[in-house]
Amino acid sequence: MDSKWRQLMTDMKSGSVPALSRLITRVESREPGWMEAMQEIFPDTGKARLIGITGSPGAGKSTLTSQVACILVEQGFTVGIIAVDPSSPFSGGALLGDRIRMRDVSCLEGVFVRSMATRGALGGLNQSARDVAKIMDAFGKDFVLIETVGVGQDEIEVVKTVDLVLVICVPGQGDGIQAIKAGVLEIANIFVVNKADREGADQVVLDIETMLELGSDSDALKPLIIKTIATRGEGISFLVDQTLDLLKTLDRKDAWQKNRIQEELIGLVEKEIVGLIKKHWNETGGLDRAVNQILDGESDPYSIAQKVTAPVAGFFKQK
Amino acid sequence: MDSKWRQLMTDMKSGSVPALSRLITRVESREPGWMEAMQEIFPDTGKARLIGITGSPGAGKSTLTSQVACILVEQGFTVGIIAVDPSSPFSGGALLGDRIRMRDVSCLEGVFVRSMATRGALGGLNQSARDVAKIMDAFGKDFVLIETVGVGQDEIEVVKTVDLVLVICVPGQGDGIQAIKAGVLEIANIFVVNKADREGADQVVLDIETMLELGSDSDALKPLIIKTIATRGEGISFLVDQTLDLLKTLDRKDAWQKNRIQEELIGLVEKEIVGLIKKHWNETGGLDRAVNQILDGESDPYSIAQKVTAPVAGFFKQK
Repeated sequence: MDSKWRQLMTDMKSGSVPALSRLITRVESREPGWMEAMQEIFPDTGKARLIGITGSPGAGKSTLTSQVACILVEQGFTVGIIAVDPSSPFSGGALLGDRIRMRDVSCLEGVFVRSMATRGALGGLNQSARDVAKIMDAFGKDFVLIETVGVGQDEIEVVKTVDLVLVICVPGQGDGIQAIKAGVLEIANIFVVNKADREGADQVVLDIETMLELGSDSDALKPLIIKTIATRGEGISFLVDQTLDLLKTLDRKDAWQKNRIQEELIGLVEKEIVGLIKKHWNETGGLDRAVNQILDGESDPYSIAQKVTAPVAGFFKQK
Repeated sequence: MDSKWRQLMTDMKSGSVPALSRLITRVESREPGWMEAMQEIFPDTGKARLIGITGSPGAGKSTLTSQVACILVEQGFTVGIIAVDPSSPFSGGALLGDRIRMRDVSCLEGVFVRSMATRGALGGLNQSARDVAKIMDAFGKDFVLIETVGVGQDEIEVVKTVDLVLVICVPGQGDGIQAIKAGVLEIANIFVVNKADREGADQVVLDIETMLELGSDSDALKPLIIKTIATRGEGISFLVDQTLDLLKTLDRKDAWQKNRIQEELIGLVEKEIVGLIKKHWNETGGLDRAVNQILDGESDPYSIAQKVTAPVAGFFKQK
């Protein structure tokens, strides 16, 4: 690690917020030395609790996230927020006045907010979110809230690696729980029915209960269903209390934790190797030649992929 | 290729729909021989036009997709549909009566519909969709419609590889175009304002126009904006006419096409190598050992990833 990294690490560890920001940026953009930095950070991680907050667009995720953060801060905890949702006001993706809708921003003053563009995350969205959460953890945050839109597969993968998942549903979105049901159902620890003053809120609760019974596993802990009106702060204290209670009962050293580490390891190795291949292909002009061969009808993507991977296959066979 | 593959290929080429289905399943699940099958199929591809249909959940994508398919069939074209959206009725992901909403299913009789679970696609969602589209292309389909929810990053990547992209917006979804704006704006060829009989439809058109002006590139072809009411079939003929006109003007052998092949090549190589590593790790028990080292605090994911990739890095350096 060069002296620039070294200085940044020292500043971050001593509590400098600008250093924290810069460190995240350098890790996110995979600047040389990022792996060594993460290696050094790793032993300082494992203290923060990661909470995923997900739901369909327009469900009020950002408002709810900021409300939850405020209450945690009031209770004396330190909080970081990672906004993966590209349309989140945290991400600056708001064109249509969303910023105005953000309430109680003053209580967020001590909260470190980091938005992640879904594109351009060189290590992949999942891994970048994991890296950033680890850095915030090492920085000393007690809680890291990860806000993500719960519709895309990649976004769902992000919340799979947290300690506890809140899924936000709202009445009056036409298809009710349709938007969030695939793949999210099984990872939800708490369903939050937000905008609960709207007509149809009870129907949403019923829909969730029906869904839970259909997919019921008698051994598993049934997810809670909690009503909130995030814009007015109603129900949020109760939600936070329940979340903290639930976190106490969840064991982190179980099979799920093992899976999570496996996923992360494979993901890291994958991105590294792809980086190596891209670099090699760029330096040798191999990618251009391959593309031209395909365009000219001399070859096809499958044959070329096989040719490129053959030596790697051979390498693993030897061992 | 063994005799089972051989038979399947022969049957598929002679027009057997069950063979087409089985072939897709085998390729999707990466059964040994899938690459050779795709190599053989590749020269028969390139004739079908791929149309991506995307938008937020509840925008009426499935209804619109089936309507577009019906009109293409009426005009004498053969059509395939790939539903990537996990909550699409095509995907069987509908719990809440969506199937009832599907109209004119009779006209879809000759249409081959394939739904893709977003999880379990071994080659990754993008590559699987590309493979399936190629197989449908080789089977002789004139058009392949790919329906996908336009919110997740992975899902957006899918529609990036098609010839033409329809983005569906609807009035009354609270945040209007908010849900679909990130990353989708720049790839839309036609914006479809569906449910145009609803209040606020003109506002959605205005919002899109404003957005297009903000991101305007004077050289680029401005996307069209077309109003439809898919449940009543209104506006669909006009939409199909415009789509066909636009397809004629789009050149497929441009820089974009080159990018597309590059992306596909890198994706294929990536998945192959990750498969090799996973296999190697499973056979040697290396993954379990690594996870235990991390759980016991003896190592961290970053150090292990670096160790595993070092020989591959060395291999590429030699060459």
